[in-house]
Amino acid sequence: MVSCLLAAGEGRRGAEQTAEVLLAADLGGIDSHGCARLRRYVEGLASGAIAAEAAIETVSATPATAALDANNGLGAPAAIEATEVAVAKAGAVGVGVVSVRRSNHFGIAGYYASRAARKGMIGLVLSNASPQVSPVFGAEPMFGTNPLAIGMPTGEGDGFLLDMATSTVGRGKLEVRQRRAEPIPEGWVIDASGAPRVDVEELIDGLKARRGYSLLPLGGSSEEFGAHKGYGLGLFADLVCGPLAGAAWGRHVYGPAGADLGHLIVAIQVEAFRDRAEFEAECRQMFAELRAARRAAGADRIFIPGEKEVEERERRLSDGIPLTEAVSADLAALAEQCGVPAPELR
Amino acid sequence: MVSCLLAAGEGRRGAEQTAEVLLAADLGGIDSHGCARLRRYVEGLASGAIAAEAAIETVSATPATAALDANNGLGAPAAIEATEVAVAKAGAVGVGVVSVRRSNHFGIAGYYASRAARKGMIGLVLSNASPQVSPVFGAEPMFGTNPLAIGMPTGEGDGFLLDMATSTVGRGKLEVRQRRAEPIPEGWVIDASGAPRVDVEELIDGLKARRGYSLLPLGGSSEEFGAHKGYGLGLFADLVCGPLAGAAWGRHVYGPAGADLGHLIVAIQVEAFRDRAEFEAECRQMFAELRAARRAAGADRIFIPGEKEVEERERRLSDGIPLTEAVSADLAALAEQCGVPAPELR
Repeated sequence: MVSCLLAAGEGRRGAEQTAEVLLAADLGGIDSHGCARLRRYVEGLASGAIAAEAAIETVSATPATAALDANNGLGAPAAIEATEVAVAKAGAVGVGVVSVRRSNHFGIAGYYASRAARKGMIGLVLSNASPQVSPVFGAEPMFGTNPLAIGMPTGEGDGFLLDMATSTVGRGKLEVRQRRAEPIPEGWVIDASGAPRVDVEELIDGLKARRGYSLLPLGGSSEEFGAHKGYGLGLFADLVCGPLAGAAWGRHVYGPAGADLGHLIVAIQVEAFRDRAEFEAECRQMFAELRAARRAAGADRIFIPGEKEVEERERRLSDGIPLTEAVSADLAALAEQCGVPAPELR
Repeated sequence: MVSCLLAAGEGRRGAEQTAEVLLAADLGGIDSHGCARLRRYVEGLASGAIAAEAAIETVSATPATAALDANNGLGAPAAIEATEVAVAKAGAVGVGVVSVRRSNHFGIAGYYASRAARKGMIGLVLSNASPQVSPVFGAEPMFGTNPLAIGMPTGEGDGFLLDMATSTVGRGKLEVRQRRAEPIPEGWVIDASGAPRVDVEELIDGLKARRGYSLLPLGGSSEEFGAHKGYGLGLFADLVCGPLAGAAWGRHVYGPAGADLGHLIVAIQVEAFRDRAEFEAECRQMFAELRAARRAAGADRIFIPGEKEVEERERRLSDGIPLTEAVSADLAALAEQCGVPAPELR
C-alpha cells in the first residue's frame, strides 16, 4: 500500500499514515474500508483529484481548539494531525476540538477515536461524506452516511469503541450481502418515490451513480422507530463538519470542485474529571455486568461496542486477513499499474 | 410551580430555575416532562430524597473543564450552573466540558442545549437515567433511556435542536399512546424472554415497578437495523455521566442510596472555528435545501430538528398549554397539599 501511494506521488509520511488506517480497517474486519479502497486513493492522487504531499495548515486556534485546512490532501494524514492536536490540547487544558476542512475520505472514523483513547482521552470523531441519505419524509439523498465514532480508555483490551454510520447502514453493508448472495431487508434503501427497494445489484450501482436511491437514517423511514433521531445525528455531523469546519456539506460534498470533506475531532482528558484508574475500573465493572445480563431467548452473548473488532483483529493478526479474489486481483493489477512489486498474497 | 417548590423547602433561585425547565417542556409540547412532573420533585424535596437548597460544589477544574457535585439537589439548578460554566469556559478558551455528579432528574436535556445555543455556542448535553433499556441480545434493563441533546445557533428561530432518548422511545411515548387509546408497535418493549410486548397498560406499570420489561435501544432488537448503534450511544452517555462524572451508572442509578444521576454538558464556541454570520448563513441554506428536497409519496413536509417544538411553543404561547384533566386535578391537589393558592386553570 505504501509503495503504491508513493508511486502516485504522496510523501512517505502521508503514505504510511494512510496505509496504517487502511490496515486498521482490514485487521478489525471492516473490509469495505481497508486495502479494497487503495485504488481509489491512488487514482485520486494520480489524477490530481487528491493533492499529493498537501500541507496541513492551521487556519485559527484557541487554547482548546484548532481549525485545520487539509488543502485537498489525503484524509488520513489530516485526521491523524487533527487527532494529535486535539489530544495535545486536551492534555494541556482538559479538552481539544479540532476541525478539518478541504479534506478527503479518511477511512474508518474509529481509527482516530481509538488513537485518542490509547492516549488516555475520550475521543469523539465526526465526518461528513458523499450524499446518499434522505431526510425523514424525503426521497432524495441530501447528506452522507456521516460517521460518528467514540473511543474510551477502559484499561481493558482496546477500550470502548463505537464506530457507526448515522444511517441505518452504509453502502458497504449492501456489498457484503451481495457478495454472500443474501437478500437485503426492506428499510435500508428507498427509491425516488420513497418506496422500499431490495434489488441489491441495482441499488449498489444506482447509489454510486446517483440514480435517485437513498439510504435511510438510523431508525428507518418513520418517526415511530426514531428515524428523526438518526436524521438529527446525521445533520449534526454535517453541520459541524460542513458549516462549522468550513468544508462542503449536504449534497455539495464531492461536488464539481472536489470532495471538500470536513471532519471534527474531540479529545477529552479523563483525569480532568476523575482518577483514571477509578474511571477504568468502573467501566470494566459496567461491561462485566452487561455481559452477565439476562439474555434474550436464543442469544448466546452480549457484546460491548468494539469487542467484535478487537477479537477479529486478534484472529487476523494470527491467521491473516482474508481477501476476496476480486480484491487480490485488483491489488496485483494496481501494483503493476504503479510499477511496484506485486504483493505476496497467499 | 415555584410556590409548591418553595413550600417543599427549595430556595427561590432553585425553585424558579426548576419551574423554568418544566415550563420549557410544556411550551415545546413535551408534556411528559412538564408540570406533570412537579409532584415528583415536590415530594422528593419533602421526603428528603432530594436535598433542598443543595450547594453546587466544584470538585475539580481545568481551563476547559469542571467537575461539579450537585450534593443530591434538584437536577435543573445543577445543570443550569453546569451549562453556564461550560459556556463561560467556551467563551474563554473555545470549549467547555462540565460534568455533574450526585444529581437528580433535570427535565428535558434540550433546555440546556438550547440555552447554550442562545449564547452562540454549540451545546451537547448528556445524562444517564433510571435503568429501563436492555443491551442488544439482552432481556433485562441495564441502563437508562439516557438522553442526548444538541443545540446550535443558526440565526433562524431557535436554531437546530435535537433532543432524543438513545432508546427507540422513552416511557413517555407509551403514556401518550395509552392516553390516546392507541396501540403500541412491536419493537418498543420486550419482556424477560426478549419477546416483543404490546399490552401498554401492563407495560407502563411494569416498567416503573421493574417487573422485567425493557425498552429497546434506538435501532430495535437486532443489528440488522442498527440496534448496536443505539446501544452504543446509550452506553456512551452512561460512561461519561457515570464513571467519568463520578455518579452512579447502569442499573445502580436510582439505587438504595438515591438517584446519584450524572450529566455532561459540552459548549463549543462557533467563532473559534468560523465567522458566526457565515456559519449561520450556511446552516440556513442547508435547512432550506432539506425543506425543498423531493418528498416521499404521501409526505407533505420535511422538518428540521427542533422545528416542531418551536412551532408548538408559538401556538401554546398564544393559545395556552392544554392539560389533561388528570394533570389539572393533580396540580390542584398538590397546591392544596403544599398550602399554596390553587392554580387558575381554565
